Amino acid sequence: MNKLIYLDHNATTPVDKRVLEAMLPYFSEKYGNPSSIYRLAKECDFAKERARKKVADLINASPTEIYFTGSGTESDNLAIKGVCFANRTKGNHIITSKIEHHAVLNTCKWLEKQGFLISYIGVDKYGIIDLEELESAITAKTILISIMHANNEVGTIEPVEKIAKVAGERGIYFHTDAVQTAGKIPIDVKNMGVDLLSISAHKLYGPKGVGALFIKKGTKIDSLLHGGHHERNKRAGTENIPGIVGLGAACELASEEIKESKNIKALRDKLEKGLLEIIDDIKINGHPEKRLDGTLNLCVKYVEGESMLIHLDYKDIAASSGSACTSGSLEPSHVLTAMGISPEVAHGSLRFSLGKKNTEEQVDRVIKILPPIVDKLREMSPLYPKE
Amino acid sequence: MNKLIYLDHNATTPVDKRVLEAMLPYFSEKYGNPSSIYRLAKECDFAKERARKKVADLINASPTEIYFTGSGTESDNLAIKGVCFANRTKGNHIITSKIEHHAVLNTCKWLEKQGFLISYIGVDKYGIIDLEELESAITAKTILISIMHANNEVGTIEPVEKIAKVAGERGIYFHTDAVQTAGKIPIDVKNMGVDLLSISAHKLYGPKGVGALFIKKGTKIDSLLHGGHHERNKRAGTENIPGIVGLGAACELASEEIKESKNIKALRDKLEKGLLEIIDDIKINGHPEKRLDGTLNLCVKYVEGESMLIHLDYKDIAASSGSACTSGSLEPSHVLTAMGISPEVAHGSLRFSLGKKNTEEQVDRVIKILPPIVDKLREMSPLYPKE
Repeated sequence: MNKLIYLDHNATTPVDKRVLEAMLPYFSEKYGNPSSIYRLAKECDFAKERARKKVADLINASPTEIYFTGSGTESDNLAIKGVCFANRTKGNHIITSKIEHHAVLNTCKWLEKQGFLISYIGVDKYGIIDLEELESAITAKTILISIMHANNEVGTIEPVEKIAKVAGERGIYFHTDAVQTAGKIPIDVKNMGVDLLSISAHKLYGPKGVGALFIKKGTKIDSLLHGGHHERNKRAGTENIPGIVGLGAACELASEEIKESKNIKALRDKLEKGLLEIIDDIKINGHPEKRLDGTLNLCVKYVEGESMLIHLDYKDIAASSGSACTSGSLEPSHVLTAMGISPEVAHGSLRFSLGKKNTEEQVDRVIKILPPIVDKLREMSPLYPKE
Repeated sequence: MNKLIYLDHNATTPVDKRVLEAMLPYFSEKYGNPSSIYRLAKECDFAKERARKKVADLINASPTEIYFTGSGTESDNLAIKGVCFANRTKGNHIITSKIEHHAVLNTCKWLEKQGFLISYIGVDKYGIIDLEELESAITAKTILISIMHANNEVGTIEPVEKIAKVAGERGIYFHTDAVQTAGKIPIDVKNMGVDLLSISAHKLYGPKGVGALFIKKGTKIDSLLHGGHHERNKRAGTENIPGIVGLGAACELASEEIKESKNIKALRDKLEKGLLEIIDDIKINGHPEKRLDGTLNLCVKYVEGESMLIHLDYKDIAASSGSACTSGSLEPSHVLTAMGISPEVAHGSLRFSLGKKNTEEQVDRVIKILPPIVDKLREMSPLYPKE
């Protein structure tokens, strides 16, 4: 797999070697259960708290506002269900958007069955939330607004500060899924004004199986996993110490390396320009500027995204047609259709998401490899208008 | 920590070196998101399915009946809440016991707030569930019985086959928390007759942060974590591949090594006999025979469990006063009090839980070290009857 060109960093990232190094002692040597009272256990407890500080530092939170979970999905579930169950007497209305990750959308769909009402706000052609629609959806029963920080498929960055202001002025909790932004763009929860913010370790060169939820001090929230007194009674279960140490190390590295994002942007722009020059009838999705530096989502008309992916894989290029979490589904992307793209065109979507190890040579290779694949697939396509 | 005598295996176990070896490639090399379609991802997907087979084999289940979770606690929460939410129209009554782990008890307490009714069944002086009380607690509204396979504090093994029969005859789902038994005693879900069974990796020399739930084919169950299509729509969130591979490897090793349990029993019996001979006024808790081979729980009268633990820790012996998940709590053990032990005596509880690496020399050392600690603490105790 050495020659693999990995361009699917929005799906997952390799664990940084330094992160793995930090984790290793906690599997077979420092293996104590941090709830126990002897030194072996206390050492693990201290490691957990050091990691909590590192996560807090990445987003300018207080360590006591960081709660470790098992994934970004669990953080989203905890934030949304936790606020809903704890504030049910206050109201039963939630506002979210049509382009959220399924961890948010399907949590909301489940809450509908439990008697909650959900408003799904639309977006413009770039994937930016309709703020007016959001404001007018607010009722006296609205207890939570959940809007992602940046979209995983197209990379569009949402105006979360504005949404936080709208929510804050009305005493409504505001949650943002920052799984795609933590470690990629600077986050300051205080400036942002959010009450809850989800993080996933494996999206920022940390391990799979661990996430975190920022819960602003004073937020009324129920638990999702009940059991022991772990995480100050907010999330039961023996703590995943190696995973937590890994998340901490990944956040610390991200704080240092976040400036390297400029290189990633240059590579992404080169890829975008290169493909646009050679391939006809393609469309770049997402906002031209307000977009994650590493994300390039495009629709190649008259071909299927999955066919392109399989051909790219043969050439050792790993990319995605949208979200990994919904791959295998025959439905077109809910994000692209919400942006007004027709299902036919949406089926031809391709997402390249770049990371810190990608090189110019790799980008050049994709620019060379993809166009003939598209030509070949279009030749076989009954939809392609041939002269 | 080389000379540490670790006797807290019911709290957590070190990751077996062979398990860690199996996990290592999946952090930084084979890091694909198994939902993606390229080879790097498929390779991880296959690793996940191989692990599923190994977990299934340990308990004689079909691989399609194994669902990966983030912990034993999550497995318990998923089993209980999942069945309750999915079968609410059928009934709202759950039967459990007074000596369950808090992952079960606090889940049930939360469900009480959601309109469910819970019966908490008592136990005899050995910690064995009162089967008659259980049977008479059943109503037309009972949808679930959840009784642990073996108790984490005292090691008593419950008559789960009998309970499964009672439940099965009445069309009631039966869940058992097997976190303390999986890998220690043979489990055959078919013979046992259970519908749901919880496993935690870190209790059987696997990593923290991963668990599994056996869900018998046909069981009507709701999800707990909503999001992507992972785990056949039962548990959303990018799969913790290294953790899952580790759980699989740990289950495979456990299948092979389960016979070594005899050595553990011999060591436990030696420790029990040795301490009983030297220390007056101690009481062994749990069933004399129907007990986990490695568990020794005893009450040392007139002293505090925590004081003994701190003194043992100074001598490099790691033990527990009961459950790690409730340590720090000033309450006496709910398990011991349910067994009829007075709060004063319960405060003097000490749990040694042995594992596969413990030696006779280590046991000898504990037999030598503990009695003078007890003498010293009793001298200082105002409760100890001095001549």
